[in-house]
Amino acid sequence: MRSPVVTIPIHKASGDTVAPAQDALAVEEPLQIRVNGRDVAVAMRTPGHDSELAAGFLFSEGILHQRADVTAVHCGENTVDLTLAEGVAIPEPRNFYATSSCGVCGKASVDSLRAAGCSIITNAGPVSRQVIHGLPETLRASQNAFEHTGGLHGAALFDFHGALQSVREDVGRHNAVDKLIGAAFFENTLPLSARILMLSGRASFELLQKAAMAGIPVVAAVGAPSSLAVETARRFGIALAGFVRQGRFNIYTAPDRFRA
Amino acid sequence: MRSPVVTIPIHKASGDTVAPAQDALAVEEPLQIRVNGRDVAVAMRTPGHDSELAAGFLFSEGILHQRADVTAVHCGENTVDLTLAEGVAIPEPRNFYATSSCGVCGKASVDSLRAAGCSIITNAGPVSRQVIHGLPETLRASQNAFEHTGGLHGAALFDFHGALQSVREDVGRHNAVDKLIGAAFFENTLPLSARILMLSGRASFELLQKAAMAGIPVVAAVGAPSSLAVETARRFGIALAGFVRQGRFNIYTAPDRFRA
Repeated sequence: MRSPVVTIPIHKASGDTVAPAQDALAVEEPLQIRVNGRDVAVAMRTPGHDSELAAGFLFSEGILHQRADVTAVHCGENTVDLTLAEGVAIPEPRNFYATSSCGVCGKASVDSLRAAGCSIITNAGPVSRQVIHGLPETLRASQNAFEHTGGLHGAALFDFHGALQSVREDVGRHNAVDKLIGAAFFENTLPLSARILMLSGRASFELLQKAAMAGIPVVAAVGAPSSLAVETARRFGIALAGFVRQGRFNIYTAPDRFRA
Repeated sequence: MRSPVVTIPIHKASGDTVAPAQDALAVEEPLQIRVNGRDVAVAMRTPGHDSELAAGFLFSEGILHQRADVTAVHCGENTVDLTLAEGVAIPEPRNFYATSSCGVCGKASVDSLRAAGCSIITNAGPVSRQVIHGLPETLRASQNAFEHTGGLHGAALFDFHGALQSVREDVGRHNAVDKLIGAAFFENTLPLSARILMLSGRASFELLQKAAMAGIPVVAAVGAPSSLAVETARRFGIALAGFVRQGRFNIYTAPDRFRA
C-alpha cells in the first residue's frame, strides 16, 4: 500500500520571520472506479483500501447488495475495476459523481485545467505576510451563521491590503468558493487577479482548481492543503499558505511572493 | 433569501446528565443546476446565492467564460436554470457531479434512499452515553496519518461496548466511510446492525445516507450535523450524536436510545 502521507519542503512564517522547514501532506489523488471495465466514477481520495472504497461507494449507491455480486477485483495504481456477477445491473454513469476536472491520475487532472483554458499566473505582485496573518480574524468576524451552527465553511475574497471584499458560507466548502466566483462572474470582475482567497478549513485539489480557473493569485487556508492542492498551486502560479492561524502559517508555494 | 440556519429541539448530554435544549443547524438542501432547461448537476448546498453558485460552478468547469455567456437566470426554491447565449456549448451531463441519492429537494433525496432498498432501523438496542463519551479519544489514538498532516478525516466502526473494530482515513470524509463499508462488504458482515459509526468531523447528508444504506444504528460525530443529516437520521431510525467532545455531546435523534 502506498503511503497516505508525503513530506515536502516548505517555509514557515511566524510573526516577522520565515524559515525553511518540512511538512507532511495528506496525499490526494483521483481513483477511477470501473465496473466491468466501464468508467462509472472518480473519487478524489487518499490512496489505500481502494477496492474497499469502490465497493463501499457502489454499495452506498444501491448497486451492490451482497458479497456474491462481485466476482473479481482488479486494482491499478489509480484505478479499480469490479467485475460483477451475471445478472447484477450495471449502473448508468450519469448517476454517479465525477467532476470534469478529474482525470485518471493527478497529472491528468492538473493537465485538464490547461485544456479548460486555465492560464498560469505569472504577473502577480507580492503580498504582505502581515496581511495574511490578519485574514482569519476578519473572516471569522464576518461569518454570520458559523458561530450559531459550527457547521458552515466560510470562504472570502480579500484585496492585497487585507480589506474584505466578499464572503460566503456553505455546508460545502466548494459551494462557498463557487458562490464567490459566481458573484464575480455576474459583476464581470473575473479574472480575480488582485484578490486573496481565504478558506476557513482545508484546501483540497477542487478548491485550488477553482482558484486557478478564476485567476486568483493567492490562496490562504486555516487548515491543511492536500498534496494535489499544492501541486495545482505550483503548476498554476498560485501562492499557497496553509495553517494560517495565531500569527503563524506555512508557505507551500511561491515563497518569494510573501513579503514582510 | 431563506435562512442558512434552522433551530431544532435536541437533548444535551453532559457527563451523566441529559437535558432538553435547542440547537442551530446549518441548512443543507440539494440545488438542481440546469442549463437551458436541462439538468447538469446537483449541489448539496446551503440555500442562498444560488444563481452565483450555479454560475461559479459552471465557470470553474470551463463552460462559462464571460458575463455575456448567460442571458437569463431563473431561480426556483431548489433549482436554478441558466439560459446561455447562442453559440455557448451546452455541457454534457456526464461530465458533472451528481449523486444518485440527490433529488431536487430534501424530501426527494431521502425518499430515493427508500427506493434504493434502504430499510428503516427499528430493532436497535440502547447505547451507553459513557461509551459515546469515550469514542473521540479512541478514534484519535487510532488515526495514524492525521497527527502528521492535520489533513485527513477519520471514520471508525465501534461495537456497542466502545471497542474499536476498524478505522479508515482519507482527505474525503465520504471516502473514509466508503472504505469502512466496503471492507464490511468484502467480509460479508453487512448490514452493520451492531455498530457505531464515529466521524472525526461534521456529519452531512451524504454520510448519513451511507450509514442508512449500511444499516448502522448509531452515528456519532465530533463536529456538527447538517439539517438534512438530522432529517435522514430521523427518517431511517439512526440515533445521531454531534459535537462529541470533552465529556459532552448533542443528541439529535432517538434520545431514548442513549442510556446511562
